[in-house]
Amino acid sequence: MFDMIETIETKKTGQELSEEQIRGFVSGVTEGSIPDYQTSALLMAICLNGMTRRETFILTDAMLHSGQTMDLSDIKGIKVDKHSTGGVGDKTSLIVAPIAAACGVPIAKMSGRGLGFTGGTIDKMESIPGFRVQLSPEEFLHAVEYAGMSIVGQTQNVAPADKKLYALRDVTATVNNISLIASSIMSKKLASGSDAIVLDVKCGQGSFNKTQQAAEDLGRLMVDIGTDAGKKVVAVITDMNQPLGCAVGNSLEVMEAIDTLKGKGPADMEELALVLSGWMVYCGKRADSPEEGRAKAEDALRSGRALDVLRRFIEAQGGDPAVIENYALFKQPLLKAELKAEKGGFVTDIAADGIGLASQHLGAGRKTKEDPIDLSAGILLLKKVGDRIEEGESLAILYSDCEEKLAEGLKEAAAAYTVGAEAPETAPLIREIIE
Amino acid sequence: MFDMIETIETKKTGQELSEEQIRGFVSGVTEGSIPDYQTSALLMAICLNGMTRRETFILTDAMLHSGQTMDLSDIKGIKVDKHSTGGVGDKTSLIVAPIAAACGVPIAKMSGRGLGFTGGTIDKMESIPGFRVQLSPEEFLHAVEYAGMSIVGQTQNVAPADKKLYALRDVTATVNNISLIASSIMSKKLASGSDAIVLDVKCGQGSFNKTQQAAEDLGRLMVDIGTDAGKKVVAVITDMNQPLGCAVGNSLEVMEAIDTLKGKGPADMEELALVLSGWMVYCGKRADSPEEGRAKAEDALRSGRALDVLRRFIEAQGGDPAVIENYALFKQPLLKAELKAEKGGFVTDIAADGIGLASQHLGAGRKTKEDPIDLSAGILLLKKVGDRIEEGESLAILYSDCEEKLAEGLKEAAAAYTVGAEAPETAPLIREIIE
Repeated sequence: MFDMIETIETKKTGQELSEEQIRGFVSGVTEGSIPDYQTSALLMAICLNGMTRRETFILTDAMLHSGQTMDLSDIKGIKVDKHSTGGVGDKTSLIVAPIAAACGVPIAKMSGRGLGFTGGTIDKMESIPGFRVQLSPEEFLHAVEYAGMSIVGQTQNVAPADKKLYALRDVTATVNNISLIASSIMSKKLASGSDAIVLDVKCGQGSFNKTQQAAEDLGRLMVDIGTDAGKKVVAVITDMNQPLGCAVGNSLEVMEAIDTLKGKGPADMEELALVLSGWMVYCGKRADSPEEGRAKAEDALRSGRALDVLRRFIEAQGGDPAVIENYALFKQPLLKAELKAEKGGFVTDIAADGIGLASQHLGAGRKTKEDPIDLSAGILLLKKVGDRIEEGESLAILYSDCEEKLAEGLKEAAAAYTVGAEAPETAPLIREIIE
Repeated sequence: MFDMIETIETKKTGQELSEEQIRGFVSGVTEGSIPDYQTSALLMAICLNGMTRRETFILTDAMLHSGQTMDLSDIKGIKVDKHSTGGVGDKTSLIVAPIAAACGVPIAKMSGRGLGFTGGTIDKMESIPGFRVQLSPEEFLHAVEYAGMSIVGQTQNVAPADKKLYALRDVTATVNNISLIASSIMSKKLASGSDAIVLDVKCGQGSFNKTQQAAEDLGRLMVDIGTDAGKKVVAVITDMNQPLGCAVGNSLEVMEAIDTLKGKGPADMEELALVLSGWMVYCGKRADSPEEGRAKAEDALRSGRALDVLRRFIEAQGGDPAVIENYALFKQPLLKAELKAEKGGFVTDIAADGIGLASQHLGAGRKTKEDPIDLSAGILLLKKVGDRIEEGESLAILYSDCEEKLAEGLKEAAAAYTVGAEAPETAPLIREIIE
């Protein structure tokens, strides 16, 4: 017999929960038979006393089976999913999915909206006129067949236990625990039905993993969870100290993704995309090694085949593919302002979280689920870490529909930039691969 | 501005809460503006990361001022309260209050019903035919004047924040934390308006303080809280490995209290009563030392003056004082059964918690607030630790109105007794005095 008070007591006293206790807890949360005040007490005990790998595996499995699991068996080939733990300027999915698909790896992906600095991938795609993120199962399959890829909004019923737990964690200061984070991500990814998953685990000041060690621990745990569930999972540990690429926002990031697929993207953005898509091609068995995967990814990018996939993907989901050639088709922001350097020198740091917050305040992100998003708001970084600047030169351009938000954003963006006399050592973008 | 999520985060990361955070939390709980799931997350973080003395003092003060505080200034003299952390067979208040009152210390006491092995003091007193535990303020004052003492039920509005927190702690496995326990007890005691408080802090298997050290730490903290609030507080650390006295139940305990006031009580019960009431007499400044207090207490007991106080107290609260001479006036249990020794030797242990649970299951205690109590149910221990017994001799008599409960209780009581070949060393009853 499952007893919630006893379960809390077990974790409170630092003992391992039994399989029965974890499954009883997750099904109680799913059914709504456990009151939130008991759930949050257990979550806090988990945060402070931790969970073993065994407990984390069981928690993931229980959450994954708390709702619908996707069956992608109608799609031929090895389906590969990709997930990022979240960063500032992270439009990677919109680049790596077309590249991997162009290499013959079918991408049938569900993505979220999310709270934070900008919208999620789903929000970003909605900046393309006409683009639909809610497809019927038939439309979803058709898009994968037609374009080689599809990205849709998460259905309500995938890992509903995780949904409830996440909502509660968010308001009880119990987000930040490795087992809760890993099981939340992996339960959704495993329920989404792909055969392999490439994880982009961020570290640095723009991520909840402040240190590389924390990111590696999380990556290792998620890889182990995936392996335990019989899936190939790779975790790429990447830098998130300064924003990724130059664009931070929604339509701004879509434009940068298109630029990157045209071979005109920022160097860091292109490099990360090639590493991740190389691993996706390898995991999807379209290459015999990650190196060969990367070579194929580069070829797909340089040849324009990846851009073609993007065009067909937009078309298949009802969007106007003409945006690829004409960025004026995106909604345009009413106002813009330039952030000027107060002194000359080198950009030594761009605090990713500071830029992220500025972007959110400009209107690009949500604080609560109900907040509207301004899809054209955001920041374009003209200078990145290591760049030489002159006094008065523009560091960044900020976009918003609101004068007041623009003024606020300028202040925050200014605070995020550090300028020094000497060129800084730059941190490597790719830190570690865990498989 | 008070921010509950930040407050939880502060404690989760092991930092000290600010005064503003603690007071904001308590007033939010009192008003009902903080959802229970946030409160329980904070309570768990407190359980696992602890509270400093400063935090505990502030928490106590905030809870004490969350509702009504009693004004006993109309009663002349130094009012002394007494509180026990709870044990099995603990009818001490019904003995020490009459003794202290007989020595001239006015007792104007509020008491609870409580959950657990038996009812609270209030429930026990209700086994006296006609006895009323809800008095108007005028009746309360009159009872203290007429009898020298009164004990009434706690009004709803004393420390309402504590009431809410306690209810939540009970269902979230967050009862057992020294700061939460100390602030819960002391906020109610300080709100009750007495000038001094004598605390009976139990230790041993029948108490939540399993070790003497835990009891001493709790006693020290409560004495410090009281001192900080300008009250004289003494904590007497006492043994609760075996039940106190011989009677466990409600009317059974009242009869034993009367026996003790007649000078015919069990030795341990009388000894504890004299120590505690001696300290009450000293704290009430009716003696210049605890030793003189004890001598006065003994005199009040031996002379029958304490029993006279009890008689007047029962009368003042509407009860029938004839019960003192005629125990047949108490409701009589329908059934009884004797627990026989299976072998001869010495009683080496009587697990207080085992006897307590048996008593609860016989009908003497509640598991939830709504459970009814059978005031005549309970256990009379005929043999205590150190007593020699023969095979087949009676160890205890169990009382209940229900055949099934009686059978269950017999099994549990049997399991609580340990009989060995050699006489055990007995633990001292009074372990420590903290003032």
